[in-house]
Amino acid sequence: MFAASRLRSLSSRLALNSLKPLVVKTAVPALSSRVTHIRQYATKDKQVSYTVDKFPGYVRNENYKELTEQDVDHFRTILGNNGLLYGNEDDLFPFNTDWMHKFRGKSQLVLKPKTTQQVSDIMKYCNDQKLAVVPQGGNTGLVGGSVPVFDEVVLSLQGMNKIRGFDNVSGILTADAGCVLEVLDNWLGEKGYMMPLDLGAKGSCHIGGNIATNAGGLRLLRYGSLHGTVLGLEVVLPDGTILDNMSTLRKDNTGYDLKQLFIGSEGTIGVITGVSILTPHRSKAVNVALLGLNSFEDVQKAFKQSRIELSEILSAFEFWDTNALQMFKKHATPKDVMEKEYPFYVLIETSGSNKDHDDEKLNTYLENMMVDGVAEDGVVAQDETQIRGLWSLREGFTEALGKEPAVYKYDISMPVPKLYECVEDMRQHLRDGGVFGQEDSPVTDVVAYGHVGDGNLHLNIAASRLESRVSALIEPYLFEWVANHQGSISAEHGLGVAKNEFLGYSKSPVMIKMMKTMKNMLDPNAIMNPYKYLPSSP
Amino acid sequence: MFAASRLRSLSSRLALNSLKPLVVKTAVPALSSRVTHIRQYATKDKQVSYTVDKFPGYVRNENYKELTEQDVDHFRTILGNNGLLYGNEDDLFPFNTDWMHKFRGKSQLVLKPKTTQQVSDIMKYCNDQKLAVVPQGGNTGLVGGSVPVFDEVVLSLQGMNKIRGFDNVSGILTADAGCVLEVLDNWLGEKGYMMPLDLGAKGSCHIGGNIATNAGGLRLLRYGSLHGTVLGLEVVLPDGTILDNMSTLRKDNTGYDLKQLFIGSEGTIGVITGVSILTPHRSKAVNVALLGLNSFEDVQKAFKQSRIELSEILSAFEFWDTNALQMFKKHATPKDVMEKEYPFYVLIETSGSNKDHDDEKLNTYLENMMVDGVAEDGVVAQDETQIRGLWSLREGFTEALGKEPAVYKYDISMPVPKLYECVEDMRQHLRDGGVFGQEDSPVTDVVAYGHVGDGNLHLNIAASRLESRVSALIEPYLFEWVANHQGSISAEHGLGVAKNEFLGYSKSPVMIKMMKTMKNMLDPNAIMNPYKYLPSSP
Repeated sequence: MFAASRLRSLSSRLALNSLKPLVVKTAVPALSSRVTHIRQYATKDKQVSYTVDKFPGYVRNENYKELTEQDVDHFRTILGNNGLLYGNEDDLFPFNTDWMHKFRGKSQLVLKPKTTQQVSDIMKYCNDQKLAVVPQGGNTGLVGGSVPVFDEVVLSLQGMNKIRGFDNVSGILTADAGCVLEVLDNWLGEKGYMMPLDLGAKGSCHIGGNIATNAGGLRLLRYGSLHGTVLGLEVVLPDGTILDNMSTLRKDNTGYDLKQLFIGSEGTIGVITGVSILTPHRSKAVNVALLGLNSFEDVQKAFKQSRIELSEILSAFEFWDTNALQMFKKHATPKDVMEKEYPFYVLIETSGSNKDHDDEKLNTYLENMMVDGVAEDGVVAQDETQIRGLWSLREGFTEALGKEPAVYKYDISMPVPKLYECVEDMRQHLRDGGVFGQEDSPVTDVVAYGHVGDGNLHLNIAASRLESRVSALIEPYLFEWVANHQGSISAEHGLGVAKNEFLGYSKSPVMIKMMKTMKNMLDPNAIMNPYKYLPSSP
Repeated sequence: MFAASRLRSLSSRLALNSLKPLVVKTAVPALSSRVTHIRQYATKDKQVSYTVDKFPGYVRNENYKELTEQDVDHFRTILGNNGLLYGNEDDLFPFNTDWMHKFRGKSQLVLKPKTTQQVSDIMKYCNDQKLAVVPQGGNTGLVGGSVPVFDEVVLSLQGMNKIRGFDNVSGILTADAGCVLEVLDNWLGEKGYMMPLDLGAKGSCHIGGNIATNAGGLRLLRYGSLHGTVLGLEVVLPDGTILDNMSTLRKDNTGYDLKQLFIGSEGTIGVITGVSILTPHRSKAVNVALLGLNSFEDVQKAFKQSRIELSEILSAFEFWDTNALQMFKKHATPKDVMEKEYPFYVLIETSGSNKDHDDEKLNTYLENMMVDGVAEDGVVAQDETQIRGLWSLREGFTEALGKEPAVYKYDISMPVPKLYECVEDMRQHLRDGGVFGQEDSPVTDVVAYGHVGDGNLHLNIAASRLESRVSALIEPYLFEWVANHQGSISAEHGLGVAKNEFLGYSKSPVMIKMMKTMKNMLDPNAIMNPYKYLPSSP
């Protein structure tokens, strides 16, 4: 039960203002909060189309060598017999396929180095031989960036999962790139620290992959982007050179900050093998509240006021619409958290060093939201289980959508006031296009959730089947809409194979040209993660 | 007077523990807290040696064209007659000379564009003609990075000082690069926001220069580095191309984050003309406390405990030694803040949204520090004037040292436990070398202060005169010491002409090679800020 003394006291105070008390029911049971679980059934279903069949137009670059037995033998000399997977379709399947089963490559070889030197030896050989390579972390990405398109060799960082060191005074962690985010977070927890980022896939994703994709996640609002928290990287360049930039200093102004180039480079210019990252103290007090609201206007009001009243203790401000809740309910049977349903929900998390102070700040804020008519209803989690329950609702949307026959997924950012206008506009556009709103329409729902604090919207268009007339209605329409509102076509998921051809909607020709120059300089043979990231046209 | 009810109540509680009450006297009067004042007398004294005479070994690169009247005429067509300074030694002096009067160039021309297009036109011409260029912001740097060495053209950003826009929901500011940091901070103050960085030179330094040098300053501990807070840049490349990356989004994962390259590039690969930056809410409650301590061991204990108890409200943790205090007193006559003097001092600032909560956290922390014997004495500022008084002490060291006949200035970072060992080691080393500790020794004092929270030490060796045997004792000895302790030879001041040849102590040959490749790619004619930043040897 959520009901507890603190909430009752809040309720009674609210009652004085002739408002109904906060109605409180039971916690939301976890749907199955981690991608780990999803990946288990991913391996059972082999009926995934190849990317090149699903999205025609890809042509294998014949500059790349085709893998030979001699190549495999050479890799055996580097890694031993157990350090690679070769030829067996079943073994290769989870490395060739993304967890959403949207993309599938045709690689015959997965390499699993355990040391930076092995990665260097592999890359040197691949560069000399012109073998194309796809670096792969936890393979939890959403844009097809971590799986091959054709027969590229997969370089899995799974085997590089050692924590290298931790400075207990400064909170600086050094680790192999293949460490799982949640493992690091739990390890740090015992020392009173935490990872500065958190995302739904944390049970599977690697810290190296997080950095290669510049993962944002749930707490960017509080702890900032990886460009600020990553202090050093060890990177193997395409020619095998080891770039040792594993600084453990908060301040170091000696030359161009080269490591920044690799943050968000999606494995196209180097393989991240080691990480140095600044970790914050784990907060002694964490509170999570859920509000029900009538409009996105109210969501914005609640956000603006939270930045003033909760300020330094605000650690997350997430929203979703009722469509997201219905999608969750379709694939799981949560008990209701509130008596009624509302068009919008926000999840607010605070993290601070003094429980009494934080409770007081949060309760005052919630009271103000109710008295001012911004929120219609609200609950506050009373213990760790209830906190997890509320978070599992927010984190469950991706998985619920994954159970739909087809989903068009978008991850866009723009000024906060425009966020939901984009969703409503898309619904109308699909209705006008005749693919949504009728009984036999291919589009079954348009679902929205995201990080209000970061102006980041996850827009999901669920469909009974993939249809070209639906795709044609969405793209480039959505990208044009985003560009017209100074937004980004990929806020945090990255480009991969899904967005690379649309880069021009978010970056100028001058920027794209400079990116290509950078790529050519660092990877002149273009062996790293080909067919992705940058547009193929000149 | 510092005495106030809150302090008295703390004192009485401490008295219960048989500790002497916190002794409180009057506020420290400001020495003259801003670099602006220093620069006023800088122009009165023309007896500054040229860099090339003081530091022999520089040879003018004859690939650069010498300025002609035709060139000046061409710049007049771009900027008009009032947009440049030409030929007059007095007018040129403040642009040729750094404010510490350590470096002096021989430029005959200062250009003052007012628009990005003018900067582009200037750079295109200079690149075509192979005229070397030094971009200059507020010229408050400490490593000679912003003044010419020979006859390079100075490109001053003074005239580009417009605020472009501000988003009141997200706190994102866009501005010209030539805006003065303090002007921006005051402007934001009226809107309830603040700049995420602060430094002693804020009355003169430009935001563009801050970003070009990756300025750290006093509040990095709280708001993080510019690599995290800068969201977008507009940069004119050496060939005149305008790189428009003025994103106003917190999240944008579309391609390499090119703007990061320019943060800390010290004007060697482009001219920053526009800035988009995330600004935090100005805290409703700010407290500043000063503690007197007996050892650097105690300073570390106080720091570690502050991260636990003050956590999310901690916004600065600065330290200085008694030598720094004596240096301040030598050039100003502050009233004593505490009854006695101590070997070490720490200045602690908290910033939060609830004054009562913050007071309680800070008082509990201070009480613990006194009861545990970590601190010997302490005061808490009671109002804005007293807060400024305490800060002016911390910010006055640079200016006080500037009044010494000669100062060897170092800005290094390393793991916190090693910070003061470095100072003590240097004192002993100079004594052993026979240049310190005797009546006629050239070195008069070794003064230390810095940002504990960032592992950043400002080490200053004051001397009665510059002597080569002193320099020879300090360098490369200090840089070797820093390198042996995994530190950086330049934490926040940058490389400029002062540190570039020592880069190898902080960066590997592979890193330096890649930096040079980057420089050659972006500035093939090497016209930007030559003789600096990267080592001249291959």
